[in-house]
Amino acid sequence: MKAKTPNASKTVMTDLVLPSETNPLNNLFGGELLARMDRAASIAARRHSRRIVVTASVNHVAFNRSVPLGSVVTVEAKVSRAFKTSMEVYIDVWIDDRESGIKTKANEAIYTFVAVDETGRPVSVPEIVPETDLEKERFDAALRRKQLSLVLAGKLKPNDATELKALFE
Amino acid sequence: MKAKTPNASKTVMTDLVLPSETNPLNNLFGGELLARMDRAASIAARRHSRRIVVTASVNHVAFNRSVPLGSVVTVEAKVSRAFKTSMEVYIDVWIDDRESGIKTKANEAIYTFVAVDETGRPVSVPEIVPETDLEKERFDAALRRKQLSLVLAGKLKPNDATELKALFE
Amino acid sequence: MKAKTPNASKTVMTDLVLPSETNPLNNLFGGELLARMDRAASIAARRHSRRIVVTASVNHVAFNRSVPLGSVVTVEAKVSRAFKTSMEVYIDVWIDDRESGIKTKANEAIYTFVAVDETGRPVSVPEIVPETDLEKERFDAALRRKQLSLVLAGKLKPNDATELKALFE
Amino acid sequence: MKAKTPNASKTVMTDLVLPSETNPLNNLFGGELLARMDRAASIAARRHSRRIVVTASVNHVAFNRSVPLGSVVTVEAKVSRAFKTSMEVYIDVWIDDRESGIKTKANEAIYTFVAVDETGRPVSVPEIVPETDLEKERFDAALRRKQLSLVLAGKLKPNDATELKALFE
Amino acid sequence: MKAKTPNASKTVMTDLVLPSETNPLNNLFGGELLARMDRAASIAARRHSRRIVVTASVNHVAFNRSVPLGSVVTVEAKVSRAFKTSMEVYIDVWIDDRESGIKTKANEAIYTFVAVDETGRPVSVPEIVPETDLEKERFDAALRRKQLSLVLAGKLKPNDATELKALFE
Amino acid sequence: MKAKTPNASKTVMTDLVLPSETNPLNNLFGGELLARMDRAASIAARRHSRRIVVTASVNHVAFNRSVPLGSVVTVEAKVSRAFKTSMEVYIDVWIDDRESGIKTKANEAIYTFVAVDETGRPVSVPEIVPETDLEKERFDAALRRKQLSLVLAGKLKPNDATELKALFE
Repeated sequence: MKAKTPNASKTVMTDLVLPSETNPLNNLFGGELLARMDRAASIAARRHSRRIVVTASVNHVAFNRSVPLGSVVTVEAKVSRAFKTSMEVYIDVWIDDRESGIKTKANEAIYTFVAVDETGRPVSVPEIVPETDLEKERFDAALRRKQLSLVLAGKLKPNDATELKALFE
Repeated sequence: MKAKTPNASKTVMTDLVLPSETNPLNNLFGGELLARMDRAASIAARRHSRRIVVTASVNHVAFNRSVPLGSVVTVEAKVSRAFKTSMEVYIDVWIDDRESGIKTKANEAIYTFVAVDETGRPVSVPEIVPETDLEKERFDAALRRKQLSLVLAGKLKPNDATELKALFE
Repeated sequence: MKAKTPNASKTVMTDLVLPSETNPLNNLFGGELLARMDRAASIAARRHSRRIVVTASVNHVAFNRSVPLGSVVTVEAKVSRAFKTSMEVYIDVWIDDRESGIKTKANEAIYTFVAVDETGRPVSVPEIVPETDLEKERFDAALRRKQLSLVLAGKLKPNDATELKALFE
Repeated sequence: MKAKTPNASKTVMTDLVLPSETNPLNNLFGGELLARMDRAASIAARRHSRRIVVTASVNHVAFNRSVPLGSVVTVEAKVSRAFKTSMEVYIDVWIDDRESGIKTKANEAIYTFVAVDETGRPVSVPEIVPETDLEKERFDAALRRKQLSLVLAGKLKPNDATELKALFE
Repeated sequence: MKAKTPNASKTVMTDLVLPSETNPLNNLFGGELLARMDRAASIAARRHSRRIVVTASVNHVAFNRSVPLGSVVTVEAKVSRAFKTSMEVYIDVWIDDRESGIKTKANEAIYTFVAVDETGRPVSVPEIVPETDLEKERFDAALRRKQLSLVLAGKLKPNDATELKALFE
Repeated sequence: MKAKTPNASKTVMTDLVLPSETNPLNNLFGGELLARMDRAASIAARRHSRRIVVTASVNHVAFNRSVPLGSVVTVEAKVSRAFKTSMEVYIDVWIDDRESGIKTKANEAIYTFVAVDETGRPVSVPEIVPETDLEKERFDAALRRKQLSLVLAGKLKPNDATELKALFE
């Protein structure tokens, strides 16, 4: 399988925030944003692998900025690193300011997907070759995140998570 | 108001086709596609005008290619020409082929929006300066379409629709 | 196949405008109205043909009157003319005024559907015999619209569109 | 207030049964049909009263016939009797047989609505003058139903429900 | 088949009231509540029978208390009595008062479901053994309701509905 | 403010998996489950604080078990620990096996919410007093998770995250 760039999987989903998706403060529900990011990220993983993909995990997500009713929200997803059968997808969320036309970063999140065949069994995916500085940085950090994920799942001893352990030294 | 390029309003909406949006042949309902195109095009018009926008008309739309359940559909909208208070938006629709990764053109459509203030009264919008050959072609054709629209609405006599009349000579 | 009247396909879809369907001015999104009209018109085409039907095209649609949140909207669709495998459906949209009880015309639109078998192949449909004056007028105009549609699709030379050409003479 | 006929409130809501509305046997969920009937009936009650209306009660509803995925369902609602501030609405549900074109009765139901002002306080509604035999029969039966409803709510002693008591003698 | 308690089928569905589910007074539509109750009750019936279940009927439902936008609504369903192939399900609806934290009873309703096999044919269900006083009271009343239902459907002569007739003596 | 138990905030949301929520393998989309968990967890946080609450973050979530179309899914949320203005909510997800009636654990997740006033400003919330062993264990772990969250957000130096650091020693 030929390696691919993150850009080859780039998926952009721009849409409005409708009244049925907002909380009592008239801001987008956190859960709705999680669902939109999942849809965009799954398409990016599918574009990279050309396979059916299923969500394996969601990294820690912080909601730093509320997204008001009527906003134009852009969810942009790109595969940041591919492992044997899984793919980490990095998602950036932007809001348009209607009057100035400026896009502000509202959120980011990291989801992991597994490529599967029609029976649901994992299958191999192409490697990723990062191009930009940001893509390289995210590619490198992906390994630390994978280790953290394995530690949290009890599948890797903290002392063997070399990349992660370095953080605490 | 400073003129803008079509690219400054470019809006990309990529999403899946879900079971609740398909007809008995398991293809996307025409009406659902019309609604998605309206949402993407309205965001493009809003990005160009930085105003509230309302749909004024939809040009003739032909559905040439069916869009099966589970497809990844990309709707891409750009303002093709701006008039005093109205904007013509050109929409291209693409489907990903999952196995080859190739995007195929599935449809195109043209919607017109009017920019309005909070009370619903039309307001002026910036001009458009087309850049690419395709943008220039669509910019020129927009005038003929506007004349046709005025003729069909009975607001312009066929003989005064000079651009249009030329077609039949 | 026995010819039928437009009335035999008449389809009425009355429903409310809900908050999730409205724009920032609290009026029904143009795209939502296009989707409702597609559903009503497809039922009319199915009633005429007793077949699966798929949307082939939408004629030029102008949105003349906004439809506020909470309105009662009536979409009424009737087949206006049948061709070999396709049907033109005429759609009238009305809004109830709650206080006076009077229905006002809010919109009209024209969609074309093709009747298909289970494999998606076009099949013949019965002819239409218009009864009222309005039905006769719409029946006659349908031929001009079909020519315009073929011209716009590049499948008929403008000079051969005799019905249409007459408009410009 | 001038009395009105049941026909003046007649509301027809024809629509498709979509996949998201069906149970594991691929038939319309009972609850979805109850919701559609409520929407149609509330529009009929609003047309009769020209007021905001709220659902007060639903009579016993039996689901005799299942409604398969893809069906064309017609819900027809008419006010059958008006009391001081409340209206009984009779709802008939039909399914189109696609091949024969014949409509079969699938269900009927009876809802009661109260007309209210903007603060939610009940307001008077016009009387009903039934025209057809069926309308007259439903008009008469409405009184018995109202008594049964009051008995079940403990607001009327069974022995005072003269219309109802007669059934058991 | 081993008899079961009502509690074994207990189903709790707590959720918010969203803007797309409310009427012009900003209260939950009666029809939406009917649909939620149907979903919760069908799960209770399925838990009792471990079969596919279909809604057979809805008893008289009165809407005594409105449910405002943004409310937390709890729908609680339990099988109250099992007959040969059908089950009566009793549904209690509660609203949280946000400030006091107190739950208030907003509604109750009674639905009947039939257990079916994959072809839709009725199958036997286990008996119910009520435990609490309230469960016993509802269990006893279920027989009277079944008789009333049969009388209303014309399948039982009023004079043979002994339980019911006693009410009027 | 009086301290409360986790049980006082317990929120149960049982519902079906519908066709519009499933991926090409006919399993619930990860994003839909994230959205349901957010709704249930926000209600638990609201019950604890009696305030408007907004999602602040989602802890790492792993999807270990797929949830097939038609499943009965139970999402159960309880506040596991309260900080000054924020609350950690622990969510357990169960699926009913229809034939055996046994509930299987399908997932768990941890969300954090902040209580706010009508203007969106954080307000204090009551403390939590865990009762069961599981509640005590989750209460203790919540502090480590908070430290990890602060480290990941760059608001706490890894060396100061004493609880967390101990993991790597």
